Amino acid sequence: MKKFVIGVDLGGTFIKAGIVDETGNIIIEDSIPTEAEKGPSHVIEQISKIVNKLNENFENGEIIGVGIGAPGQVDLQGGVKYPPNFPGWTVVYLAKEVEKITGLKTTVDNDANVAAIGEAKFGAGQKHPNFIMVTLGTGIGGGIIINRKIYRGPTGGAGEIGHVSINFDGPKCNCGNYGCVEAYVGQRYLSSWVAEELKINPNSKIVEIVNGDLSKIEPYIISLAAEQGDEFAINVWKKVGFYVGVMLASVMNLFDINVAIVGGGVAKAGKILFDSMNETVKSRALKPIAEKAIVIPAQLGNKAGILGAGALVFEEIS
Amino acid sequence: MKKFVIGVDLGGTFIKAGIVDETGNIIIEDSIPTEAEKGPSHVIEQISKIVNKLNENFENGEIIGVGIGAPGQVDLQGGVKYPPNFPGWTVVYLAKEVEKITGLKTTVDNDANVAAIGEAKFGAGQKHPNFIMVTLGTGIGGGIIINRKIYRGPTGGAGEIGHVSINFDGPKCNCGNYGCVEAYVGQRYLSSWVAEELKINPNSKIVEIVNGDLSKIEPYIISLAAEQGDEFAINVWKKVGFYVGVMLASVMNLFDINVAIVGGGVAKAGKILFDSMNETVKSRALKPIAEKAIVIPAQLGNKAGILGAGALVFEEIS
Repeated sequence: MKKFVIGVDLGGTFIKAGIVDETGNIIIEDSIPTEAEKGPSHVIEQISKIVNKLNENFENGEIIGVGIGAPGQVDLQGGVKYPPNFPGWTVVYLAKEVEKITGLKTTVDNDANVAAIGEAKFGAGQKHPNFIMVTLGTGIGGGIIINRKIYRGPTGGAGEIGHVSINFDGPKCNCGNYGCVEAYVGQRYLSSWVAEELKINPNSKIVEIVNGDLSKIEPYIISLAAEQGDEFAINVWKKVGFYVGVMLASVMNLFDINVAIVGGGVAKAGKILFDSMNETVKSRALKPIAEKAIVIPAQLGNKAGILGAGALVFEEIS
Repeated sequence: MKKFVIGVDLGGTFIKAGIVDETGNIIIEDSIPTEAEKGPSHVIEQISKIVNKLNENFENGEIIGVGIGAPGQVDLQGGVKYPPNFPGWTVVYLAKEVEKITGLKTTVDNDANVAAIGEAKFGAGQKHPNFIMVTLGTGIGGGIIINRKIYRGPTGGAGEIGHVSINFDGPKCNCGNYGCVEAYVGQRYLSSWVAEELKINPNSKIVEIVNGDLSKIEPYIISLAAEQGDEFAINVWKKVGFYVGVMLASVMNLFDINVAIVGGGVAKAGKILFDSMNETVKSRALKPIAEKAIVIPAQLGNKAGILGAGALVFEEIS
């Protein structure tokens, strides 16, 4: 009989879930408000509710398990720790709780690992047994896939590529360190240095698009200006690619991995960004790595959350 | 019956070898000139000669194998690639060749991995199933021990911690990249920036020790001056500790490992250096790592080569 799983993408505002088959098709999907402000028990109920609804109405095969991608850190015992924007959480054993209510075997991992596992099983990573997953968004997430499996490290905290310092004297990062790549290209940091530089480059199209209100700068606006040929905006993406490329060269050298897959909102900047990341990695990684180094776009797009969470279940049972 | 192995430390000038027991005692050791200038076949013969001599004269037990620590890169098939200062080498399958001549099962890995495996089995790593090994010398070598095993990566090139860039705008490294930690603290780079800074700090004891000849600066001289309370020299070791600590914080974040073991000539600088590395790691790694982070000295000292190569054999058969 064909096997199916339910993939759950736990976001701060919505919980998205879908039934996923073994080849990465989403058969049906649904969503429900997270209502994180009502606390962890309520979130557990909301997840269980949407899982039960999908499960009960499904008649085309057997649901063999549930995978959840959660924000925050997730330890090897499935403890979801202090997810940002989830008041009242300390450590919540989400999988165990959902399993109790739904009766379905449930597994959980963090967003970034889930994205990596999703690309490995259903996306750009299918051809690459070893790769570094990068998600460029508010934060810079990462996942290391070694021999088609995620490397979690001794306590489940591995793969924090966003907190590789590319300049010991660089801007202060939220984590306390200086010059983390996240402190250059994380969405808020990026918008902030771009705004700063625009003060001395007031002729950029970006200023026009935001009607002079530099607090409104977001990555998609920089992309908009770049698409219209704005040189300042193009250079922003080149710089972002450079910063990410510098980090990737170091990480590739450490793990002996020559493929990086990049997704997340900021990655939509496209060709300019990817060309810059590729050039940087090729000129900066150690020769044996650099010769074969490629940085390619993720393929799952906005389905990454559900598909990755689904892939997590298939990974567990394979 | 008690089991013994032969550990071989292949250096540019001498080949050192010893019979090692399962608890890390060197029963007997010997050495022979490498004569690398005579080419790879001769080096293979020299290694085999010293191995045979040790084996033939040993009557206290069974020699179950030979381990070799080699400079340069070593691939997963045992190919020793372009070791520096070994003319005429391309890729040499050292283990296979030595095995043919000696009849003893032979295995080979690079210096840095061997040092890591040695510390894991017989040294400071016995208490730490996961750690980052750092060797501070001419180059900055590394090895990543995960669950008591070395992480070699898909092609055997992993663990290149010396080529983590800690400043994208930093000094050019021999490898082509900029700001690699090796380009700050590798022996030649270190001596060179210290000489540069001494031009504006001519009162340092270092200048006195080298009689004004700044080309004679070496790490042990900086240590000598530091031991005599020279503030400039003390600050050099603080800076070296800072640079290594910045790199370690990033590597710890990536691998989810909170222990680093540091050996090699430069590490002899001692307490000032280790205090600085520890402070840097604690203030720069992600909180869950930083809380438990420690940087400790390697224990095997100048026996690291033989003991590590011996440990390599025990690792293979365990």
